[in-house]
Amino acid sequence: MTLCPAAEIGMLLADVDTPCLILELDAFERNLRRLPESLQGKSIRLRPHAKSHKCPEIALRQIALGAAGVCVQKVSEAAVLIAGGVKDILIANEVVGAPKVKLLAELNRTAHVAVCADNAENISALDTAARAAGVTLDVLVEIDVGAGRCGVQPGAPAVMLAKKITACANLRFAGLQAYQGPAQHIRKVDDRRNAIARAVEHVRLTTRLLAEAGIACEYVTGAGTGSYMFEAASSVYHELQAGSYIFMDADYAKNEWTESGIPQFEHSLFVWTTVMSAPAADRVVVDAGLKASSIDSGMPRVADYPDVNYVKASDEHGVLQITGATRFKVGDKLKLIPGHCDPTANLYDNYVCMRNGRVEALWPIAARGALL
Amino acid sequence: MTLCPAAEIGMLLADVDTPCLILELDAFERNLRRLPESLQGKSIRLRPHAKSHKCPEIALRQIALGAAGVCVQKVSEAAVLIAGGVKDILIANEVVGAPKVKLLAELNRTAHVAVCADNAENISALDTAARAAGVTLDVLVEIDVGAGRCGVQPGAPAVMLAKKITACANLRFAGLQAYQGPAQHIRKVDDRRNAIARAVEHVRLTTRLLAEAGIACEYVTGAGTGSYMFEAASSVYHELQAGSYIFMDADYAKNEWTESGIPQFEHSLFVWTTVMSAPAADRVVVDAGLKASSIDSGMPRVADYPDVNYVKASDEHGVLQITGATRFKVGDKLKLIPGHCDPTANLYDNYVCMRNGRVEALWPIAARGALL
Repeated sequence: MTLCPAAEIGMLLADVDTPCLILELDAFERNLRRLPESLQGKSIRLRPHAKSHKCPEIALRQIALGAAGVCVQKVSEAAVLIAGGVKDILIANEVVGAPKVKLLAELNRTAHVAVCADNAENISALDTAARAAGVTLDVLVEIDVGAGRCGVQPGAPAVMLAKKITACANLRFAGLQAYQGPAQHIRKVDDRRNAIARAVEHVRLTTRLLAEAGIACEYVTGAGTGSYMFEAASSVYHELQAGSYIFMDADYAKNEWTESGIPQFEHSLFVWTTVMSAPAADRVVVDAGLKASSIDSGMPRVADYPDVNYVKASDEHGVLQITGATRFKVGDKLKLIPGHCDPTANLYDNYVCMRNGRVEALWPIAARGALL
Repeated sequence: MTLCPAAEIGMLLADVDTPCLILELDAFERNLRRLPESLQGKSIRLRPHAKSHKCPEIALRQIALGAAGVCVQKVSEAAVLIAGGVKDILIANEVVGAPKVKLLAELNRTAHVAVCADNAENISALDTAARAAGVTLDVLVEIDVGAGRCGVQPGAPAVMLAKKITACANLRFAGLQAYQGPAQHIRKVDDRRNAIARAVEHVRLTTRLLAEAGIACEYVTGAGTGSYMFEAASSVYHELQAGSYIFMDADYAKNEWTESGIPQFEHSLFVWTTVMSAPAADRVVVDAGLKASSIDSGMPRVADYPDVNYVKASDEHGVLQITGATRFKVGDKLKLIPGHCDPTANLYDNYVCMRNGRVEALWPIAARGALL
C-alpha cells in the first residue's frame, strides 16, 4: 500500500506533515562541494559511501562533482543504484551466498561493480559466478587495519588471498580495502590521527609484500567522514569512502574538529516532528520516536533550541526536557538532528528536500530496506 | 524499485537469503492462541497492539481468535490496516495536526477508529474534523498512570477533558487510556505487579470522579505483554493492548515470568543471517547489523547456540563472540532473536513465514514506515 506523503512540492515547511525526513538543500549542497574541494591538489579520488543515503539522486550529484563512483555495502543496494543510473560501484564489503554472488556477477554485464573478499572459498565462488555470467570481476582484499570486524590480517595473509585472486581466470585483483570504522568516532583529533597512522602502517606492510610478490596493487580504499583527511595525507590511500559528510549527524558532531585543514560540515538532515503532548511546562512529547530516528548512536539533538534536550525515545514518542525558558504547545513543529544518519535514512521512503522554506523536491530513498 | 525477495514459497530455510525476517508459524500460532486462552473466564477483551507487527494478515488472525479489533499508534497505520480488512481500531495515542485529524475522521466513514486525547484544543480539532466528515468520533482520555509520557494527570484533569468531549457534538467520550509502558520491562514479577497496582489506583480515582460527575466511562484500556495478567485481574480494565506476545523478543525474555498463571510465550520471530567473515576461530561476523535488527533495547540473541553471543552491531555487520566449542565457517546461516521486535519488523517488507522448514507464505509488513 502506498502511504500518503508527508509533503508535496511547493509546500511551506510549516505545512509538511510529521515525522518526515527533511533535507536542507543549501547546507547539503555546501557539504557536497566542501569535501571534494578539500581534496584539491591531492592525487586521491573520492568514492562516497551511498549506504548513508541509499538514493540515486544523491549518488549522481556526488559523481557530477567528480566522485569516481560510489560505495555500497550490499549487492541489493548496488542493483538499486545501477537502476538509478550509477555506473561505477564498489561493494566495500564481502558478498557471500550463491544468489548474491550470482547477482553481483550479472550486474557487471551493465555496470562496473567491484567487491571485497577476505576468504578463499568465497573467492572461488566469485570466480565461478563471474565465469557463468561471462564477466571479469574486480576483487579487493579486505584487510583488518584495527577495526576488528571483517578482513584478513595485513601482510602475508592478504598476499595469499591476492595470489588466489590473480590465479582465478574471471577475477582481477584490484587492490586493498582498508577501512578503520571505529576510528571515525574517536572524539579527539590526535587519537583519530594516531588510529589512522596505525592503519597506514598495516597498509604499507601489505603493499610492500604485494610488490615483493610481484602483484600489482592498483589502489587502496578506505576512510570515512571522521578521518578522511588523514588517509588523504598518508600517500598510501588512493580512494576515500566518506559518506556522512553530506548529512552530518549528531554523533559525528561530537567529534573534535579543531585542526586547521579539516573542513567543517553542516547539519543538513533533520527529522521534522510535532509536539503531540505537553504534559508539563518543562516536558513535552514529540511524535518522532525510535522508528523515526535511530538511537543506536545516541538520542537525536533538538535543533535551534539549546535549552531543549531529547531525553527518551520509545517506538513512536520522544520526550523533550526543557531546561530554559522555551515553551512549546501541542501542534508546534521542530527539527531534530538524528543521532546516526545512516539507519535513520533507512526508515523513510523519501527525502523531503527544502530550499528557502519550501519543498523543492521529494527524492526516493530507493535502496531503503535493501538488506540482501 | 521492487527489491528481489529473500525467499519464495516452498523454499527450504537453508535456501532463504539473508538477512530476512523469519516467522516460525507453529510457535507464532501457539502464542496467538495462548494469550486469549489465558483470559478465558475473565470479562475482559483483547485488542492487540498492531504496532508490533504492522501486518493485516496477523491482525485478521488475532481478530479471528476473538480480539475486539487492534490498536495502532499512527493514523497512517490505521489506514493501512483498514485497507487490509480490519474494521475496528483504537489509535492508542494522540493524533495531532490538521492532515492527520482529517484522515482520522474520514476513516470513520468506513471503519470504527477511536482515538486518545490529552489536550483541550486537540479535542476541538477532532470535533471540527468529525463534523466536516459527517461522523461521530469515539475519543478516550489518556491519563498518565506512571509512564511519564503522554496523558493528563489522573483525577480532576481527566474529568475536565471528558466533560469537554461530551460537550462536543461530533465526539463521544468512550473511556480512558491508561497504559503503563515502562512497567512492561521491569524484570521482577513483584515490581511489575506493584507498578500496575499503582496504575490501577490512578484509574480507580478517575473513574470514581467521572461517575460523580455523571459521565459514563464505557471502558478502560491499557496493558502490554509484560503486565497484562495484572490489569486483567484488576477489575478496572476492560481491554488489553498486549502486542509483543505473538513474537516474544529478547528484551521481553529478560523479564522474570515465574508466577503461575502467567503464560509463557515462545520466540517466533527471528532474523535469519549468514556468517560473512570468519576472522578468528572465536569471532565471526554476520550480515545482519543494526539495519536488520534494532538494538535500541539491546543486542539480538543468537538462537540455538548458547556459547555464541552477538556482541557488537554496526550498520550492516554483527560481531559474534564464541565462548565454547561452536565453530562457524563463512556461508553458515543462523537465527537471531531480535532485541526488540517492533522496530525490527519495521525494517522489513515481509515476514518469511516458515513451517516444517519450508516457506509457507510471505506476509507483507504493509504498514512498515507508516509514520504519519
